Amino acid sequence: MLVVKKFGGSSVADKERIFNVARRCAEEYQIGNDVVVVLSAMGDTTDDLLMKAEDINPYPSKRELDMLLTTGEQISVALMAMALQFLHVPAISLNGFQVQMHTTSRNGNARLKRIDTERIRHELENRRIVIVTGFQGVNKYDDYTTLGRGGSDTTAVALAAALHADKCEIYTDVEGVYTADPRVVPNARKITEITYDEMLELATSGAKVLHNRSVEMAKKYGVELVVRSSLNTEEGTVVKEVVKVEKMLITGVAADKNTARISVIGIVDRPGTAFKIFNTLAKHNINVDIILQSVGRGGTKDISFTVSQEDLREALQVLEDYKEALTIQEITYSENVAKISIVGAGMLSNPGVAATMFESLCNSNININMISTSEIRITVLIDEKDADKALVAVHDGFGLED
Amino acid sequence: MLVVKKFGGSSVADKERIFNVARRCAEEYQIGNDVVVVLSAMGDTTDDLLMKAEDINPYPSKRELDMLLTTGEQISVALMAMALQFLHVPAISLNGFQVQMHTTSRNGNARLKRIDTERIRHELENRRIVIVTGFQGVNKYDDYTTLGRGGSDTTAVALAAALHADKCEIYTDVEGVYTADPRVVPNARKITEITYDEMLELATSGAKVLHNRSVEMAKKYGVELVVRSSLNTEEGTVVKEVVKVEKMLITGVAADKNTARISVIGIVDRPGTAFKIFNTLAKHNINVDIILQSVGRGGTKDISFTVSQEDLREALQVLEDYKEALTIQEITYSENVAKISIVGAGMLSNPGVAATMFESLCNSNININMISTSEIRITVLIDEKDADKALVAVHDGFGLED
Repeated sequence: MLVVKKFGGSSVADKERIFNVARRCAEEYQIGNDVVVVLSAMGDTTDDLLMKAEDINPYPSKRELDMLLTTGEQISVALMAMALQFLHVPAISLNGFQVQMHTTSRNGNARLKRIDTERIRHELENRRIVIVTGFQGVNKYDDYTTLGRGGSDTTAVALAAALHADKCEIYTDVEGVYTADPRVVPNARKITEITYDEMLELATSGAKVLHNRSVEMAKKYGVELVVRSSLNTEEGTVVKEVVKVEKMLITGVAADKNTARISVIGIVDRPGTAFKIFNTLAKHNINVDIILQSVGRGGTKDISFTVSQEDLREALQVLEDYKEALTIQEITYSENVAKISIVGAGMLSNPGVAATMFESLCNSNININMISTSEIRITVLIDEKDADKALVAVHDGFGLED
Repeated sequence: MLVVKKFGGSSVADKERIFNVARRCAEEYQIGNDVVVVLSAMGDTTDDLLMKAEDINPYPSKRELDMLLTTGEQISVALMAMALQFLHVPAISLNGFQVQMHTTSRNGNARLKRIDTERIRHELENRRIVIVTGFQGVNKYDDYTTLGRGGSDTTAVALAAALHADKCEIYTDVEGVYTADPRVVPNARKITEITYDEMLELATSGAKVLHNRSVEMAKKYGVELVVRSSLNTEEGTVVKEVVKVEKMLITGVAADKNTARISVIGIVDRPGTAFKIFNTLAKHNINVDIILQSVGRGGTKDISFTVSQEDLREALQVLEDYKEALTIQEITYSENVAKISIVGAGMLSNPGVAATMFESLCNSNININMISTSEIRITVLIDEKDADKALVAVHDGFGLED
């Protein structure tokens, strides 16, 4: 069996944790499996490197920033190989060049295009544990690139796909995917199995355990993902295409506080105005999430939508710049909002789900500003101060603790 | 004009020094020259990485150690590119992979074999300063290698040769090559010009300003070397094939305290015994320097020789292991010895040089243990405690301060 294991930066932050990971990998190897390990940079290394860069140049080119940051994972993989060798397990580290991890050319946020598996297969055939740098690749100019947020997860899934691995284990500091964030909802329950689509909706809705790009890729290539703890041997959560039917309507509930609402008021009510607004924002790489359009009044209409808080300033600037062309009379916004989402394939055949969610929020005196739904997700926008209370209320309302 | 500039780790140890180097390179660029910069790892980075490795595994594989160490120069070059960009000078950093700096496969002490210049030329044509990682390369397996001691100097000279650069400037924390170490001999004089051969002999004799591998390569490819300070704009020392004749018999005097003497006593006096001893040591990668064989007595003879202090333990072990086969009756050694060497093309045609040297030492009551000579060098082995006094005495004896 071929297993890809991915460990994040906190799992390799110091000597003790490096050996903890090394021992886990050695155990997998010693029962006869082939093991590929994907690592992030140790602990705060990436942040330290970013600070070094900022000290030299507050606006470094992204090409050079990637050249700097990619050293972080290279240090991790070299030290891990040494740790495994200390445990008398044959191991070899490989970076983005050595694996030939081909990406698009966009520095800082590149996408994986193609992975050469020849070198890795060769090393596995020689019965070595292969340790690969996550987060990084090389573009067609032979320059280093990095994959952006959640990059190492994506590396692991892509490697698992390219190598036709039997499974891809993502090790984190939690035991798996929960019905809600256990720090906010103490009786949240670990989910045994979840579909790619549900996991995608949860990840997009604020659950931080997996990045949606890695889940998308896992779904695309049918890679069985396991999310589990690097600190114990609990089973974790399996993410796959079809899961055994559970009785739950809802798989989980998630909150996303990294949200801001923008309203554009009094735009001319004729076909194409909404398109123009969102097309203009898209051209500036601003992702819009929930959109709500009010019924027209006196020849004008209002449109509200949400963006991530990082994009708020730029979105407002873009709208201001094009205010006249977009026929906007007034722009208002709020940073103090949060999204609460429930996700579950069960809601497809159960019409009462939305009502149950709204009832739970109503019983806790939480006002709903906007509503957005997909086939297996319902999201509401509420005041940020109510987010934790809402999470508990909805989790309880659906009886997710059982 | 194309200039290769090499800066060591202390020249890029912090932000201020990085910008000092960046400004010097920018000045060269702004007068219209093409500039290639070779950098070592910042300050103590390499030592820090070695300590990290040792903490994980006291005997890491050299392959993984090189994987770890090569991150050091990559950090330097990325930050230097950012500094130049901050000064509005177009710059790009390249590592051993990107340059395709091909080396032999021996990790930790590889030799450069071939450098692809295509990428560098392309970047120079686009009027960018190209910043290249020193000390590192890649072998035929696509694994990182490092070049061992003085590696970044060698990288710079090799790049200068491959690019047919007009000169190769080695920046250090001293102003050039001196007639003796100025910290020991205060009236030592900076040498304006020196031949490759003299520089080679000085480097081999303990002058630390240039590593002999880089001088050998400069001689082989006719690269004009300039040794100068990174802290001021003084002219420095030019190392080249032919220098204008100076009146000096002697170019410089050097001391090497990293020396140990070994004597093997009472070996059988027949042909081949000396060969066997040094062949055995060579097979264990132990370099032997001065050799002195006494006249035979009663069918046996004694041989004394020097090795570097790092090699002493292993040399003694090897001799002990093969004691019987090598017909050795007794092994003695001393760590407290030093070599004092005078170097100069002038001694070729001046028979009195050795006498002057011995006289200077005699006048200072310094006993000579062993003597070794080449065409342009005379080396004596003395007690280590006399080394500084000997340096001053010989320097004065030849009037090198004038």
